[in-house]
Amino acid sequence: MKKFTFEEITNHLITQGFFYPGSEIYGGLANSWDYGPLGSLIKNNVKDLWIEHFVRQIPYNYLIDPAILMNPKVWEATGHVSNFSDPLIDCKNCNSRFRADKLIEDQLSDKYDVNKLSESDMNKIVNVEKQVVCPKCGSRNFTEIRKFHLMFKTFLGVLEDSKSTVYLRPETAQGIFVNFKNVLRTTRSKLPIGICDIGKAFRNEITPGNFIFRTREFEQMEIEFFIEPGEDKKWFKFYKKNCKSFVETLGLKDENIRFRDHEKEELAFYSLATTDIEYLFPFGWGELMGIACRTTYDLQRHQDYSKQDLTYYNQETNTRYLPSVIEPSFGLDRLILALLCDSYDVEDVKDDKRIVLHLNPRVAPYTVAILPLSNKLTEQANKKILKVLDRRLNYIVDTTGSIGKRYRRQDAIGTPLCVTYDFDSVNDKCVTVRNRDTMEQVRIKITKLNKYIQDFLFK
Amino acid sequence: MKKFTFEEITNHLITQGFFYPGSEIYGGLANSWDYGPLGSLIKNNVKDLWIEHFVRQIPYNYLIDPAILMNPKVWEATGHVSNFSDPLIDCKNCNSRFRADKLIEDQLSDKYDVNKLSESDMNKIVNVEKQVVCPKCGSRNFTEIRKFHLMFKTFLGVLEDSKSTVYLRPETAQGIFVNFKNVLRTTRSKLPIGICDIGKAFRNEITPGNFIFRTREFEQMEIEFFIEPGEDKKWFKFYKKNCKSFVETLGLKDENIRFRDHEKEELAFYSLATTDIEYLFPFGWGELMGIACRTTYDLQRHQDYSKQDLTYYNQETNTRYLPSVIEPSFGLDRLILALLCDSYDVEDVKDDKRIVLHLNPRVAPYTVAILPLSNKLTEQANKKILKVLDRRLNYIVDTTGSIGKRYRRQDAIGTPLCVTYDFDSVNDKCVTVRNRDTMEQVRIKITKLNKYIQDFLFK
Repeated sequence: MKKFTFEEITNHLITQGFFYPGSEIYGGLANSWDYGPLGSLIKNNVKDLWIEHFVRQIPYNYLIDPAILMNPKVWEATGHVSNFSDPLIDCKNCNSRFRADKLIEDQLSDKYDVNKLSESDMNKIVNVEKQVVCPKCGSRNFTEIRKFHLMFKTFLGVLEDSKSTVYLRPETAQGIFVNFKNVLRTTRSKLPIGICDIGKAFRNEITPGNFIFRTREFEQMEIEFFIEPGEDKKWFKFYKKNCKSFVETLGLKDENIRFRDHEKEELAFYSLATTDIEYLFPFGWGELMGIACRTTYDLQRHQDYSKQDLTYYNQETNTRYLPSVIEPSFGLDRLILALLCDSYDVEDVKDDKRIVLHLNPRVAPYTVAILPLSNKLTEQANKKILKVLDRRLNYIVDTTGSIGKRYRRQDAIGTPLCVTYDFDSVNDKCVTVRNRDTMEQVRIKITKLNKYIQDFLFK
Repeated sequence: MKKFTFEEITNHLITQGFFYPGSEIYGGLANSWDYGPLGSLIKNNVKDLWIEHFVRQIPYNYLIDPAILMNPKVWEATGHVSNFSDPLIDCKNCNSRFRADKLIEDQLSDKYDVNKLSESDMNKIVNVEKQVVCPKCGSRNFTEIRKFHLMFKTFLGVLEDSKSTVYLRPETAQGIFVNFKNVLRTTRSKLPIGICDIGKAFRNEITPGNFIFRTREFEQMEIEFFIEPGEDKKWFKFYKKNCKSFVETLGLKDENIRFRDHEKEELAFYSLATTDIEYLFPFGWGELMGIACRTTYDLQRHQDYSKQDLTYYNQETNTRYLPSVIEPSFGLDRLILALLCDSYDVEDVKDDKRIVLHLNPRVAPYTVAILPLSNKLTEQANKKILKVLDRRLNYIVDTTGSIGKRYRRQDAIGTPLCVTYDFDSVNDKCVTVRNRDTMEQVRIKITKLNKYIQDFLFK
């Protein structure tokens, strides 16, 4: 299989308008990215497909959309206020900043399991025993570890003090947990019930990077699936299968995805099991999503802190209990990045080369490009074709350059079908439909065009 | 026309699961609301319809999705850092807090035009001349005016100081302006070009209220339409017409919407014209959206502050200029609220009453409810019907209670079509489709069901 560098792919994506550096005219803002016209269409498509796969096609599941700003007590209950931080150190010699845990992991993994080290353990290793070296300048002269909090905080209301502090949510999951009873009641559901959410989350990461793979502002697609305790294994397996089939349906190649089960030592004390789906990015394997068996931990914490009854009453068995939870959690931006890396190709065609994105047609920014052969035909082509096209389809009208050149342009942004309207179309009421992947062309009636596209998309 | 109280409507929406109070189990968070299962589906539908109407059906327009966190220089350029604040005063007697400008407007509108008063003018009126009275306790004893900033601020990176201060965007528009040249370049467009964006914005309002009408976290759907200066009037008219047709298409009744043109005194100095579309909520007329003629103001400011060339070169006329801008800006949450208020009705049917939401079928949370007549038929009904249904449609399976009771339940959440699968369906392969508004029923072949629904939706 051909391999392309990350730089080659991301350059292509930026040049084409999938993404722009955030606030670019002001010199950017620390690895923030804006979705351009092509990126924003892909994003909507992937969200739609996630909703189709996980909300509509799983009969127990409902979508909600909770607010980003939540009562700060939520983050006390979850432990984020006290624990969601990185142990930072600076090299006193060259002023570079590092995460102490990462340095120990990188340099001393045969000696220590970083997940088991406390802050004072790490301080001892770094600053007393001087076992760790600065990767930049080679010296062993670090500051004490400082806890750096990963939640963005802001102030609600008039005063800027601790009483008015609220946080930008660092994960969407908690908006689901606090609404568990609300959703259960208003949907009149029994267990199992899944509550799904797509939305922004924010983490004040010290080292964002790898393009849109790790950014401070990002979007998650999360499900909390509430079940009777004891059924954890069964549903964990169900979601492993379902999440795999989702990324396969989107189009990721099997050889580029793998499961990584978390070791016992990596697991939080309450977790029965966690597994990640990883993707082989040009920069190495990276986590796309995780499925965690969280047991009753989250609801128990919220019940303790809110003093509300969050138990479920099972009428059939006349028992009352806190449900157990399976949590499949996708990073939307990195999933999009994976789809773009996976579909990128440079191919020889005749005497030419083409860059092509072999995107799943339902993921591609535009389903159809309309190519009027001559400018004289543009108005007519638009009128005749748009009249029959499903209004929900994204299309682009491309009028400049030769048809061959336009094919290349559409290949480069992944448009699966090009529809050429030529001088014959005026009389025979047919168009030529060209397939991005096979490059084959068929001539079909305009009245049959929409049906052709629907069959192509939903075959 | 029947009128319903705001309380009656919002109670219904909360009971049914359109919305929940944010962080409810922790006592909420100052008028924040979470979208429940029904609300989140409506929200997605309205977004989709906005994209269809303004992005796909206007050939000049493109969608983008810029980040919420932007370089703080953006908000210096726009004037938000220095000017985006409310003049607050407290009553020293009863400790109530007010906006000085609102008190003057309410009590002295015949004497002063609040838009023309400076902060020191207002201080004089309130604290020297004591012309204003506390609406709560009647005393005339206020604190000095304090500027209360409406942008939420947070800190990016390790230090919490002014250098690391960033803001939660108070409007989505600026993510568009800073990307004007990026979009122009990557789409190889000429003017006019429209750049569209849907996303969250945040304002630290002192007095949020009226349910989801005014919240601190809200969602906007904005377009910046870049044109050759001089064409402002033409395109302003174009968007007035287009925005009106959009809210009409969504289903708002003509008698409940009106244009409100801003008076000369209300306009910002650079603005040629601004008009709002207002909706008659149960609590009175409220702004749904605004269309503003912003001239070259925004691009000029960004050009000045960023030192980047933001001009447009017109090849045909060999001229270079800063484009003028028309800005149609929708509040998504209040548009949804208007649609729900507008469609709410209580009707007498036979010996019964029904609450019904006469929502546009494309806005309604579920397009179809599947009603198996008996539990024995549920699995079969799902299998046969879901096999033929367009995968993009939201549906619900409702299995409890009599069919009449289920009709009422679906009416109450606005489901336009109920599909009953009965014992005859097993043999004649037909289902009964019942229309929410006419309450008429037709018997149709399952193989024809999807076509029937498509025609119903896109007639």
